[in-house]
Amino acid sequence: MKQPPPSARTTLQRKPQRGHHDAATIAAIIDAALICQIAFHDGDSVHCLPTACWRIGDDLYIHGANNSRLTRTLLTSECAVCIAHVDGLVLARSAFHHSMNFRSVVIYGLFTAVDDLDEKQAALAAFVEHISPGRSALVRPPNAGELTGTRVLRLSLAEAAAKIRNWGVEDDADDLRQPVWAGVVPLRTVAGSAQPAEHCSARPEPTIPSFILSTGANPS
Amino acid sequence: MKQPPPSARTTLQRKPQRGHHDAATIAAIIDAALICQIAFHDGDSVHCLPTACWRIGDDLYIHGANNSRLTRTLLTSECAVCIAHVDGLVLARSAFHHSMNFRSVVIYGLFTAVDDLDEKQAALAAFVEHISPGRSALVRPPNAGELTGTRVLRLSLAEAAAKIRNWGVEDDADDLRQPVWAGVVPLRTVAGSAQPAEHCSARPEPTIPSFILSTGANPS
Repeated sequence: MKQPPPSARTTLQRKPQRGHHDAATIAAIIDAALICQIAFHDGDSVHCLPTACWRIGDDLYIHGANNSRLTRTLLTSECAVCIAHVDGLVLARSAFHHSMNFRSVVIYGLFTAVDDLDEKQAALAAFVEHISPGRSALVRPPNAGELTGTRVLRLSLAEAAAKIRNWGVEDDADDLRQPVWAGVVPLRTVAGSAQPAEHCSARPEPTIPSFILSTGANPS
Repeated sequence: MKQPPPSARTTLQRKPQRGHHDAATIAAIIDAALICQIAFHDGDSVHCLPTACWRIGDDLYIHGANNSRLTRTLLTSECAVCIAHVDGLVLARSAFHHSMNFRSVVIYGLFTAVDDLDEKQAALAAFVEHISPGRSALVRPPNAGELTGTRVLRLSLAEAAAKIRNWGVEDDADDLRQPVWAGVVPLRTVAGSAQPAEHCSARPEPTIPSFILSTGANPS
C-alpha cells in the first residue's frame, strides 16, 4: 500500500523522532501482536477492550460473536486501535530518565463487516495461521452455524502511526558518575513447552509464530 | 479496599464465568503490567494510547509531561484503562474453538492529579521500584525542575473488572478424533541479559520485577 500522509490524529505531538508512518513498519508491529486494544464510545461512555487481531494486506482484522456489543458498536462508531509491545526496560542513572523500549501502532477508523462467506472463511483461516503457521489445513474448518455466528471485521490501516523507542539510556552528563548500573534489560515473549489436551495423541506439536521465541521447555 | 459492587459498565455481558471483581485479583493483574492502554475522547475523536503504569493501594498511577495532551485531557474527561496479558495459545481441534488464555482488567473513571510534591516524589519512586525493585534508593532522585515538569495522575480502582481465561481447550465431542495436536502453548515475558550502557562499570546488575522471568541469558 502507498501510505497516505499522516492525519492530524496520526502526527506525533511529542518526541516526533519516535514516529513512523511507513506501511512496512506499521505492518511489522501488527504482525508481532496477538491482541490489540480497541477504544470506542458507545454513546454513554468510552470503552477500552482487548481482542485478538491479525493482518491481511492493508487491513487489521478482528472477530467476535455476531450479537456482541463490541462488534455491533464498532460497525457504527469510529474507533482507535492500539497495539503495543514492550521490548526493554531502560534503566538510567536518574529516576527521571528511566524509560521503556517499545513498538506501538495506533489506527483510527471505522470497522466494516466481512459478510461474504468465502472471504470470512479465508480471514478466519488467516487468523489460525497467524497463531500457528500451517495449522488451518489441519483443524476442522468452521461449519455453517459457526460461520454465521461469527462476525469478522476489518479496519483499513490508511490512518495509522507507529511509535518506536529502541535505543539505550539517555542520561544527563552530570549523572554519569552516579554509582548505579545503567543500561537496557531486553524483554521477549517466550513459549513454554506445549501442554497437550486430555486424550491428545496426535503429532506433531504445534508450530508457533516467528515473533514468539520457543524455548522447547516450560519456562514457568 | 472493600470492592464496591460491579457497575453496569463492569458487569460482563458475555461469558460471565470469566469475570472477577475482587480487589486482590484486579491488583495482581495490574501489578504484573508495565503498561496500560488508555481510551479517552478529546471532544473530536476517541483515542487509545499506551503508557507506563503502576499501582499504589487502591489507585492506578501514570505519569507524563506536564504539557502533554494526554495528561491534560485525562484530568477533564472520563476514560477507560485496559491492561491485558496473553498467557497462552489455546489450540483446539476445530478452528472455531481456538482461543487464548489471558488476564485483563478494565478500569473506568476520571484521573486526578497528584500535586503534593512529597506525594508525587513517593509515587515516582514507587514507579522505579515497580520496574526494578530496590532501585529507587540507588538512582539520582528527581530535582525540582524534573518534578515540576512531570505530571503524576491517579485513577481509583473502584470501578474495575477483571477477566480471566486460564484453562484448556474446549472442543466439541464430535471433533475429538480430528488428527491434530490440541492443547495449550503457555507464553511468558522473559528478560534477556542486561546490556550495560557505555561507561557503566557499576555493579550489581539490576533486579527485575518478579512477574518477569529472568533467563540470565539473552534470549534474542
